[in-house]
Amino acid sequence: MQLTLKIIKIGGNIIDDEQGLASFLQDFARLPTPKILVHGGGKSATKLSEKLGETTEMIDGRRITSSENLDTVIMVYAGLINKQICASLQAANCNAIGLTGADANSIQSAIRPTTPINYGWVGDIEEVNTKVIQLFLNNNITPVFCAIGHDGKGQLLNTNADTVAAEIATAMSAEYDTELIYCFEMNGVRKDINDPNSIITNLDKRLYSELKTAGVIAAGMIPKIDNCFKALENNVSKVIIGNARLLHDKNEMFTTLIA
Amino acid sequence: MQLTLKIIKIGGNIIDDEQGLASFLQDFARLPTPKILVHGGGKSATKLSEKLGETTEMIDGRRITSSENLDTVIMVYAGLINKQICASLQAANCNAIGLTGADANSIQSAIRPTTPINYGWVGDIEEVNTKVIQLFLNNNITPVFCAIGHDGKGQLLNTNADTVAAEIATAMSAEYDTELIYCFEMNGVRKDINDPNSIITNLDKRLYSELKTAGVIAAGMIPKIDNCFKALENNVSKVIIGNARLLHDKNEMFTTLIA
Repeated sequence: MQLTLKIIKIGGNIIDDEQGLASFLQDFARLPTPKILVHGGGKSATKLSEKLGETTEMIDGRRITSSENLDTVIMVYAGLINKQICASLQAANCNAIGLTGADANSIQSAIRPTTPINYGWVGDIEEVNTKVIQLFLNNNITPVFCAIGHDGKGQLLNTNADTVAAEIATAMSAEYDTELIYCFEMNGVRKDINDPNSIITNLDKRLYSELKTAGVIAAGMIPKIDNCFKALENNVSKVIIGNARLLHDKNEMFTTLIA
Repeated sequence: MQLTLKIIKIGGNIIDDEQGLASFLQDFARLPTPKILVHGGGKSATKLSEKLGETTEMIDGRRITSSENLDTVIMVYAGLINKQICASLQAANCNAIGLTGADANSIQSAIRPTTPINYGWVGDIEEVNTKVIQLFLNNNITPVFCAIGHDGKGQLLNTNADTVAAEIATAMSAEYDTELIYCFEMNGVRKDINDPNSIITNLDKRLYSELKTAGVIAAGMIPKIDNCFKALENNVSKVIIGNARLLHDKNEMFTTLIA
């Protein structure tokens, strides 16, 4: 039987919520190994960009990354957030190691083609280095990935944290039974965006398609859910979207994606 | 016979000199493994601090680290500089991994006592995790340390990069024949601060003491050289101070410290 490897993505407003993040990290630290954490950046990169007088352009919920924006996201994601998370996990007896794709060449990316939209210094993942991730896991070291990649030619790239989590889960499924859990501030995917209790327990492709057509699932949720289905089609055994509290509260509602 | 491990510290103005740094990293990448890089922060943290309207206070060439300063040095040292160095080394076929002390608990520090001087969020190294560093080295992964530590209780701390290099060299000397090489923009320790050709080839404690008394060696050079002698007294086999070019140019002058 294969060992189960949980890949947990934490994002959304939780990253900016000091108490919510601290509580989530305590829960994450308590999970059995092997496990991997992938974190987003919250609003702090945008805030720092504004403070530095940079402009931030978004298309379909994705940031256009100028050279100055890239420096800022590297500082915030790979620097401040990643290292604070690692220090907190170490304090909770979880032997975390913070990683970008450049570290130990753990993830190699390529700059996204500039047509039809030029996203700037944004990368798409080409290869996850499963060997080095296994080396960490086998030595009881828990990888904590931020969504910064590199192209192997010296260029760092901004990548999407949801995609990083899905690609790691997919690649690691060759060696482990992988579960992918997306945690954010909502309890899952809602049938009615205004009703927090309208969580869809099981979301299959037919229902997803209907809800997209009806405009219920829109904007940033679409690439997130597309990542989930793609992971399920590529040997990830379980994909869940839910509130960060689901790690400790068994009564939390969440959405399970059904292939 | 023990394997030789080179611990190279790069600091000073080289960090801010794009071409000088690129050339140094090419040289570092070509060195045989095992090797470890420790980097300082140059002036970019101070520049970012100023841009963000923070104040920077220095005592004896050491930065007083306020909470806002700490966030800035984490962003610049552990984020921007560390990750750009790792991406550049990867491009040069050196399998670099960027680390703070918090990552894999590689270095544990304690906050510096607040008397006689309160340096703020500054840490002194308590323990270097030689086991995890060996794990990396044995797997052909080259650690690249920035000078950010943690206290094991969730607090990140600003540490001195010269000291980080010396402490790593000292700790690793139990397993390797360790050589500690401090690279910066000068060719070594000068007899006459205004004469770049007055490099002292061999600096022993007696000469060091004389030059300190004469005021020739002063300010920031004193803790640097103290670190060197301390390392030599603690089983580091060789300590050199010189220009970053000494890695490739055999005609470069440099200073060898003599126990």
